[in-house]
Amino acid sequence: MASFKDMSKQELEAVREQLQAEYDGYKAENLKLNMARGIPGKEQLELSMGLLDSVNSSTDLTGINGADYRNYGILDGIPEAKQLFADLFDVTTDQIIVGGNSSLTLMFDTISSAMAHGLLGSTPWASLPEVKFLCPVPGYDRHFGITEYFGIKMIPVEMNQDGPDMDYIEKVVESDPYVKGVWCVPKYSNPTGITYSDEVVRRFANLKPAAQDFRIFWDNAYCIHHLFNDDVKLLDILKECEKAGNPNMVYMYFSTSKITFPGAGLAGMASSKENITAIKKRMTVQSIGPDKINQLRHMKFFNNLDGLLEQMKKHADIIRPKFEAVDRTLTERFGDSGVAVWSKPNGGYFVSLNVLEGCAKKTVRLCREAGVTLTNAGATYPYGDDPKDSNIRIAPTSPSVEELTEAMKVLACSAKLAAAEKMLASM
Amino acid sequence: MASFKDMSKQELEAVREQLQAEYDGYKAENLKLNMARGIPGKEQLELSMGLLDSVNSSTDLTGINGADYRNYGILDGIPEAKQLFADLFDVTTDQIIVGGNSSLTLMFDTISSAMAHGLLGSTPWASLPEVKFLCPVPGYDRHFGITEYFGIKMIPVEMNQDGPDMDYIEKVVESDPYVKGVWCVPKYSNPTGITYSDEVVRRFANLKPAAQDFRIFWDNAYCIHHLFNDDVKLLDILKECEKAGNPNMVYMYFSTSKITFPGAGLAGMASSKENITAIKKRMTVQSIGPDKINQLRHMKFFNNLDGLLEQMKKHADIIRPKFEAVDRTLTERFGDSGVAVWSKPNGGYFVSLNVLEGCAKKTVRLCREAGVTLTNAGATYPYGDDPKDSNIRIAPTSPSVEELTEAMKVLACSAKLAAAEKMLASM
Repeated sequence: MASFKDMSKQELEAVREQLQAEYDGYKAENLKLNMARGIPGKEQLELSMGLLDSVNSSTDLTGINGADYRNYGILDGIPEAKQLFADLFDVTTDQIIVGGNSSLTLMFDTISSAMAHGLLGSTPWASLPEVKFLCPVPGYDRHFGITEYFGIKMIPVEMNQDGPDMDYIEKVVESDPYVKGVWCVPKYSNPTGITYSDEVVRRFANLKPAAQDFRIFWDNAYCIHHLFNDDVKLLDILKECEKAGNPNMVYMYFSTSKITFPGAGLAGMASSKENITAIKKRMTVQSIGPDKINQLRHMKFFNNLDGLLEQMKKHADIIRPKFEAVDRTLTERFGDSGVAVWSKPNGGYFVSLNVLEGCAKKTVRLCREAGVTLTNAGATYPYGDDPKDSNIRIAPTSPSVEELTEAMKVLACSAKLAAAEKMLASM
Repeated sequence: MASFKDMSKQELEAVREQLQAEYDGYKAENLKLNMARGIPGKEQLELSMGLLDSVNSSTDLTGINGADYRNYGILDGIPEAKQLFADLFDVTTDQIIVGGNSSLTLMFDTISSAMAHGLLGSTPWASLPEVKFLCPVPGYDRHFGITEYFGIKMIPVEMNQDGPDMDYIEKVVESDPYVKGVWCVPKYSNPTGITYSDEVVRRFANLKPAAQDFRIFWDNAYCIHHLFNDDVKLLDILKECEKAGNPNMVYMYFSTSKITFPGAGLAGMASSKENITAIKKRMTVQSIGPDKINQLRHMKFFNNLDGLLEQMKKHADIIRPKFEAVDRTLTERFGDSGVAVWSKPNGGYFVSLNVLEGCAKKTVRLCREAGVTLTNAGATYPYGDDPKDSNIRIAPTSPSVEELTEAMKVLACSAKLAAAEKMLASM
């Protein structure tokens, strides 16, 4: 298929008719495919069934320090699990909290605590005339959901291939004391799949924020979610922040939601000792501590960091063909139409597709009407507002390769149809 | 031993010397007993080991509605678990959330949400000039910890044998719009062990609060923690509030922390549909949902409400002798000294001891110096301040009967010694 923009009106009309016929064909198939969220597929879940046997009624539930993990006690995670994540992030265990089952809840709680109580003695954010967050876009809708919920003003920042636009971030963070945070998914970013370059990480670490309580919310959700053998290295921001004299500037979050079982996994955070101590102090009021037995279950299942990384290879083997099917089908189906570009990630859970400007919402609607549910267009932008109406997030992990291939055909057809109609309307 | 207050100075001095010798004897024994917190004993934990086998790698983790409990989804608890607690509290499942492992965290979060966002559209509490809570005393230190953390002013309310002083509560709640809540442990109260009478519950339900967003925080922690066969019935406050036209006035909290494993149990809340809907809306931003596999584990272990209640009988059989040992030893050791009164609870986790006014801190210190760690004196009062310095909370469940008997001897000796010294000082 030739480039749409080189076509005459007549040629494009012919193409539009072809696409409409193809689309009607899909509609007649009564498909029912949901690709709205980045969730593991069944085959991935099977990888962790051994987790359910790793603790049973014969297991000694005494921890390494003698605590009975069946009883009260321990706020910040069992030492075994803290060690695992300390190893993973190359920090000391007093820089780690392993708590609860949801890193989203931890992020929500950090912001909730900053709003009501401030951070390390700073003015509670709720008492300020306004609070702003920088939001690299496209980004993760649930991050934006938290800041929106707390009435924090979100400022979109353009994402490049090596990370967000640091010139802009430096300018704003270093001049505006009401800019209190930035949301980052620094590795295999949601949804673009890019990993921040060393230079971007260093520029983050060396920020001189106007606000003393400015924080980088470093959601390291996909830190070990490689698709290929060649892991893309992310520079260690905790160490870079320390070097730069900004030890308290970053909160890193992680979870095993997409490693073992979402909901029944472990979540945690890593930060400076001072930040972790402050959070633990809050937790003495807030919590009886995490599910220590489930933490032990994970430790007996993984044993150590090697076991964890081994599990990730198995995940990659399962989902790599799915990402390949997405790329292959989109390549075939968009051809030289020139109405879409998409990411080719080395890890993570998403493919980011940019369709012709002004066509994302319509494309998603056409897909939905043909039985293929995608993440809402706009969801990857603060307030659900993609100013170009162009970005669509594809979540390939849950459907089968066959389903994905079919869904990508519908998606490409819908995007081309929307593009042809838009272009024709202005001819 | 005769009543201290009937003794002459000389007699009391002789008693004091005897007590000092007895106390020095305990000190020489190098005891090491910790009774600071109400935690289950080992034998109780053994009751739930089957929980660790109820789900394994052969288990079908598909829920009653077809959901795969190994994956994302479900915010407010699996339907099976919601049904169990709906049965327990005689409500519908849309009045229930089963979420996380800690009811304390749910209480914290309710207050956090009221502070930042208000309740059902009310002004966020953090925006008001002040917020006050009523705190029946003696009460639960961790309740007071939450309200103190949020800067909420706590007003103590006297506890009677049938519940808190309702004349006072009615007067204050109905006249002061800044009184936004009251902490209640309505059944087998922490620490006094009393259960609110039907009249007290009805008076709560029929309050006409000056604040539309006044809430009763009904911590039903010990709802089925009977020590004897004759369960003390607590009137259903949710229904009474509905009848009284105050359907949204109460949040009820519960957990299985002291039924299965603290930390690895289930926590939840029950309230009006409108309140539950509002909390679920917040949860869509805050959480990926609870650990559904652990909820299923509990359901397969208990099967239903009968299974849950059966488990409670086994708990009662284990801890009843401990409560009896406390009462027996205190009765023997205090004799007719008249310097202490204590509760004889029909359920719950505590015995509340009132020693001679001005002697609680000293008694606890003496005990600690003799190797018996009790809950800090004052802990049962807001800000840790027991104005009479009289109340001591005894947590009998964890130590053995032998340890308890020894600890109660030390406690009685310490309390009598402190009392004798105080009385002598003013003679």
